[in-house]
Amino acid sequence: MSVLAITGGVGGAKLAVGLAHLLNPEQLVFLVNTGDDFCHLGLHISPDLDTLTYSLAGHACPTKGWGRRDETWSFLKTIQDLGGPAWFQLGDKDLALHIYRTQLLNEGGSLTAATKAITKALGVKHSLLPCSDDRIATVVDSDVGQLSFQHYFVKHQCRPRVNGIKYDGADRARLNSILDLATISIVVICPSNPYLSVDPILAVSEFRNFLRNPHVPVLAVSPIVQGRALKGPTTKIMTELGHTVNNKTIVRHYADILTGLIVDEGDAKDCETIKDLGIECIARNTVMRTIDDRVRLARETLEFGKALSR
Amino acid sequence: MSVLAITGGVGGAKLAVGLAHLLNPEQLVFLVNTGDDFCHLGLHISPDLDTLTYSLAGHACPTKGWGRRDETWSFLKTIQDLGGPAWFQLGDKDLALHIYRTQLLNEGGSLTAATKAITKALGVKHSLLPCSDDRIATVVDSDVGQLSFQHYFVKHQCRPRVNGIKYDGADRARLNSILDLATISIVVICPSNPYLSVDPILAVSEFRNFLRNPHVPVLAVSPIVQGRALKGPTTKIMTELGHTVNNKTIVRHYADILTGLIVDEGDAKDCETIKDLGIECIARNTVMRTIDDRVRLARETLEFGKALSR
Repeated sequence: MSVLAITGGVGGAKLAVGLAHLLNPEQLVFLVNTGDDFCHLGLHISPDLDTLTYSLAGHACPTKGWGRRDETWSFLKTIQDLGGPAWFQLGDKDLALHIYRTQLLNEGGSLTAATKAITKALGVKHSLLPCSDDRIATVVDSDVGQLSFQHYFVKHQCRPRVNGIKYDGADRARLNSILDLATISIVVICPSNPYLSVDPILAVSEFRNFLRNPHVPVLAVSPIVQGRALKGPTTKIMTELGHTVNNKTIVRHYADILTGLIVDEGDAKDCETIKDLGIECIARNTVMRTIDDRVRLARETLEFGKALSR
Repeated sequence: MSVLAITGGVGGAKLAVGLAHLLNPEQLVFLVNTGDDFCHLGLHISPDLDTLTYSLAGHACPTKGWGRRDETWSFLKTIQDLGGPAWFQLGDKDLALHIYRTQLLNEGGSLTAATKAITKALGVKHSLLPCSDDRIATVVDSDVGQLSFQHYFVKHQCRPRVNGIKYDGADRARLNSILDLATISIVVICPSNPYLSVDPILAVSEFRNFLRNPHVPVLAVSPIVQGRALKGPTTKIMTELGHTVNNKTIVRHYADILTGLIVDEGDAKDCETIKDLGIECIARNTVMRTIDDRVRLARETLEFGKALSR
């Protein structure tokens, strides 16, 4: 069995850590959203790859979910004093990663190669693959105009009303060439924001076509718990896009690719409705507060996947 | 009277601080070496401009002479952990300046404009002018081959034997266009390394020609004290280039432009010999340990300049 886990940043990284705890690097590969990537102060920043890297390396800040633990902030304070942009929080240690990656890219390396060098140096054993080495940029069409993802998410703190979301470049982007689709036996969609974190990956047509393959079960852990997302703008965006915030919306969103959905135990009542839509469904505790929660949910997810593979 | 002070980094910055204490921004302009500038980790670094900026802003590290006081080093430690280059000491606060300047340059601004924005933000009132907005690169021809300045100075810690020094680009470089030569009544060459810090500026032909103007006195504070330079590789380089380490060598080096030289009081005996060469000479305490030393020597330098202007 080889598991491919699709993930964005904070939410997805929790399940990713659990999966990495159970499966060795030959059994598990991560395909990571790059739609949030952007250039800031001349640096190539890949927020989701970094959150995954720090989470798997044990360097993630446990309170914020993003960035590094034991971070220092001299740079940010100083660039503010200089009159430079300080809206994007760049810690001194985090900055080293961005500068190093930018140098590797400027020397002609791919984002995949740069990610490999960085994760290796930080002791991450599993492969983190950017969904594509081509540029994919998530753009939010909002009531204040088109906003690049980080401008919407960080600078405007998700306040503008979302009318739509597009993934610039995704139609031409090639799937990460390192990923060997023939070896994948189960696909897990981690509980990341469907619109902002998962859809940029699914927008790569070669990958979306692969997921429609009926021989490889695709299961998702729902990011919705009792009518709302635990964190981030998922709830707000779903509402603004005209959807009801529930598991049925998640199932409809992934309708053409999904085999099974894991909902929170508090939403166990949804399982019957979802099964009626032709999607397998189980209810588990999906709120991952501790490392034990992450490993437990990862185990339950893999068991569900094995059952669906039969 | 308008004073133009030519300076490199650490040594020259000491006298620069003294001069800035005595003269207001309308009376004093600094013309700064850019031959040490280089690109590192994708960042445009201007070591001498930065040392001047930090010194005049009161942010300079008092023990090292370069870099910022109360600096933190999270970035450098982390980039080393990542396998990136850590030979050039970049503090977290210092890094903010390099990133901000690089962004301003990448947006199409000149080094002069970037320096102005940075010095203004840090409260520096005097103009720091890069000697040129065109690239000048000091290259050391050594027994291990041609080395860019920072590779010689920092990476190899001045260990290679110097056969010669050249200033790539200086023959085509235009003098800083902000500098109004018509307003200059005295030129002061601060006690920086003649070969590494002052010569790249003098290599700009328009400026060298101006200094040959007999109506504007050019005085230098000798970087030599009792047969050696106080710090840095001046002594070693002078010897390797076949020169005796004394004030006579300094006079010969600046022969075509110099009006007067200030030697250390311990070298008072040199004054007569230097006067015999047609150069005015006075002996003062040139060792600047305290701010009072810097202001005193600056005052003595300006008095000497006024006397020579008559």
